[in-house]
Amino acid sequence: MISVAVMGYGTVGSGVVEIIEKNKKEVGEKSKDEVGVKYILDLREFPGDPYEDKVIHDFDIIANDPEVDIVVEAMGGIDIAYKYTKGALLKGKSVCTSNKAVVAEHGPELLQIARENNCSYLFEASVGGGIPILRPLNTSFTGEHIEEITGILNGTTNYMLTKMDEEGREYDDVLKEAQDKGYAERNPEADVCGHDACRKIAILTSLGSGKTVYYKDIRTEGITQIDKKDFEYAKKLNGSIKLLGLSRDVDGKILAIVAPFIVSDKSPLYAVRGVFNAIMVKGNMVGNTMFYGQGAGKLATASAIVADIVDCALNKGKTIDCTWKSEKAQMVDDREKVFEYFVRVKKDAFAELSECLGIREKITIDTADDEIGFVSAAVSEDKFFEAKDKYSNSMINYIRILDTEN
Amino acid sequence: MISVAVMGYGTVGSGVVEIIEKNKKEVGEKSKDEVGVKYILDLREFPGDPYEDKVIHDFDIIANDPEVDIVVEAMGGIDIAYKYTKGALLKGKSVCTSNKAVVAEHGPELLQIARENNCSYLFEASVGGGIPILRPLNTSFTGEHIEEITGILNGTTNYMLTKMDEEGREYDDVLKEAQDKGYAERNPEADVCGHDACRKIAILTSLGSGKTVYYKDIRTEGITQIDKKDFEYAKKLNGSIKLLGLSRDVDGKILAIVAPFIVSDKSPLYAVRGVFNAIMVKGNMVGNTMFYGQGAGKLATASAIVADIVDCALNKGKTIDCTWKSEKAQMVDDREKVFEYFVRVKKDAFAELSECLGIREKITIDTADDEIGFVSAAVSEDKFFEAKDKYSNSMINYIRILDTEN
Repeated sequence: MISVAVMGYGTVGSGVVEIIEKNKKEVGEKSKDEVGVKYILDLREFPGDPYEDKVIHDFDIIANDPEVDIVVEAMGGIDIAYKYTKGALLKGKSVCTSNKAVVAEHGPELLQIARENNCSYLFEASVGGGIPILRPLNTSFTGEHIEEITGILNGTTNYMLTKMDEEGREYDDVLKEAQDKGYAERNPEADVCGHDACRKIAILTSLGSGKTVYYKDIRTEGITQIDKKDFEYAKKLNGSIKLLGLSRDVDGKILAIVAPFIVSDKSPLYAVRGVFNAIMVKGNMVGNTMFYGQGAGKLATASAIVADIVDCALNKGKTIDCTWKSEKAQMVDDREKVFEYFVRVKKDAFAELSECLGIREKITIDTADDEIGFVSAAVSEDKFFEAKDKYSNSMINYIRILDTEN
Repeated sequence: MISVAVMGYGTVGSGVVEIIEKNKKEVGEKSKDEVGVKYILDLREFPGDPYEDKVIHDFDIIANDPEVDIVVEAMGGIDIAYKYTKGALLKGKSVCTSNKAVVAEHGPELLQIARENNCSYLFEASVGGGIPILRPLNTSFTGEHIEEITGILNGTTNYMLTKMDEEGREYDDVLKEAQDKGYAERNPEADVCGHDACRKIAILTSLGSGKTVYYKDIRTEGITQIDKKDFEYAKKLNGSIKLLGLSRDVDGKILAIVAPFIVSDKSPLYAVRGVFNAIMVKGNMVGNTMFYGQGAGKLATASAIVADIVDCALNKGKTIDCTWKSEKAQMVDDREKVFEYFVRVKKDAFAELSECLGIREKITIDTADDEIGFVSAAVSEDKFFEAKDKYSNSMINYIRILDTEN
């Protein structure tokens, strides 16, 4: 019997309990042992809940019960979640979590504590919800040098951008709809400003490179500046606009960024609509692969946690290791970050700005006769932002362009 | 030091040697030990090849060398490959292969021999080339009941169908091009008749269900009857035509089929073009996920074998098990296989046939005024084939329709 303690009985935590119960046969067979929930830690009471009798309020009960093999951290937040995770690992209990904030902030330390205590710290559910991506990165691309990871990592913003694209609607309008449907929070900042995607690409890149990529070192731009005219231009370029987390290995240094990109309809990422997520991984041998599925949702996320639980059950007393070490990755500086940009500029500044950045293609749309759009030459970030500052009164918007081979 | 013997020094075998050499650092780190190729078994000599001195011609050298931990079977064919695989496993040497024919024919027996000899029989490369799919099925969907697997599993036919769709060309024409480019064999039967896809969906379904689905029990229809008019009709249905391997769990029984399907542009499978493969897996908790990448090619396929090698290296002396057991899965009979069909029929038989099968939608195309197309109601295979026999002189072609939720 493998005993699990679930910390946090909200959406994800209750999903974990539901899957362990509903798919008891599959989980047991795969774990080669029966798996059962012994405790549910939450501040609240749950009168009438079928697992009411398992609810406790004191973490120490879990920490001090030698029967508990695996702890699920589905509490959210950082400080308490980190403290309890560390406490469990120090007692040799494996921890499985969906909490990307804790992973991105404290991942290397918690992984090291797990190694020293013959247990595991697993977080498949922290990136891409139910999409198996961290485990394949760890166990399937073992013969690969990972060259690039590009992902649609946030379902809320992808839902909004899909609506803007398909229905020609404005940002505020689709944000309100996303909030009404429960896809976006009342304070949508974590999603729309790219912070959520940033933590996810930081985790993916750390696993892919084996070194720590700290989320605060990643330039992060959200989608709040995108308007419906941008989509009209994007269509003229046979593309759409997606919020991407992207990282590349550039001669051993890491280029990482979160920003809206124009993605060509030739890319498999183009077809990823609505709340779905997808992650492309490019290895030097395998080429491009893509992993697609629901990036959020109670059962999808819980399913990834249950997969981690089964892995821990099969590896009781051992550490399921990954290559992510605490050594910090060297990041490329802005001179080495080179992209083509789609730029919208007021008519009178077009000649000067396109001269400054170089021009690949000029684009105009019928609905805006006081501005001109163009695709710049490939320029470095420092050069681009210098131009942006200089022409701040004339540049209406800019969006990077994803290289067509992706 | 982990010693590997590579059997078969053709495209895939030489790719394995190349990756082990080129990504030595990554492979060594992930294996927690140095991995080296000790023998290359082939009938031929390779004068001037950098690994010329490793080439041997006698399998017994491998079987009797206790230093050889892992054997790669990249020989192709069935009988000798099966014999050597069995011989290696009986000596406790793990075997990694891309040989889907051997896996589909002898999988359960070889897996059992591996279990009894504390070694592993792994075959990630046998399905989807470089796409990680078997390992995720085994290790990531452990909390799932797998309800459905739907895959574009053959790159050659997907290349041909993509060309027919995008360029409005005929079957013979694109087949010739595929042969000229080396994508299709001179005798293209294994690809175009669906036999290759059939073995792959048999393997996937056996892993997903835990029971043996024998490839000979799967109805298999190829793409040889598809012509360019079919694509004109498909476009009117906002879809395209893809050769799919599909299996479903129907109340514990397995529905499996390989056939061309009309796939709606709302499905992520629609966007899978050219030689790429994609496999959708639907779990009862996670919903739909999709795995995409190069389904063939020297390095992509070899990369999957190297991942298996690393797994064996990390689990020396143990069996990396899967749930695939020798017990045969119960297959649904034709009365329980229900699909909607797109049917092309001569004008004079339209009224009768559409009455017989039921009609959802009538479709006509400008280029064919002597026939009528229609989408039938959902009918069982036995009923459909009864009608097909009855109207054999009037039915021009038929293609199943993939349910839109996929």
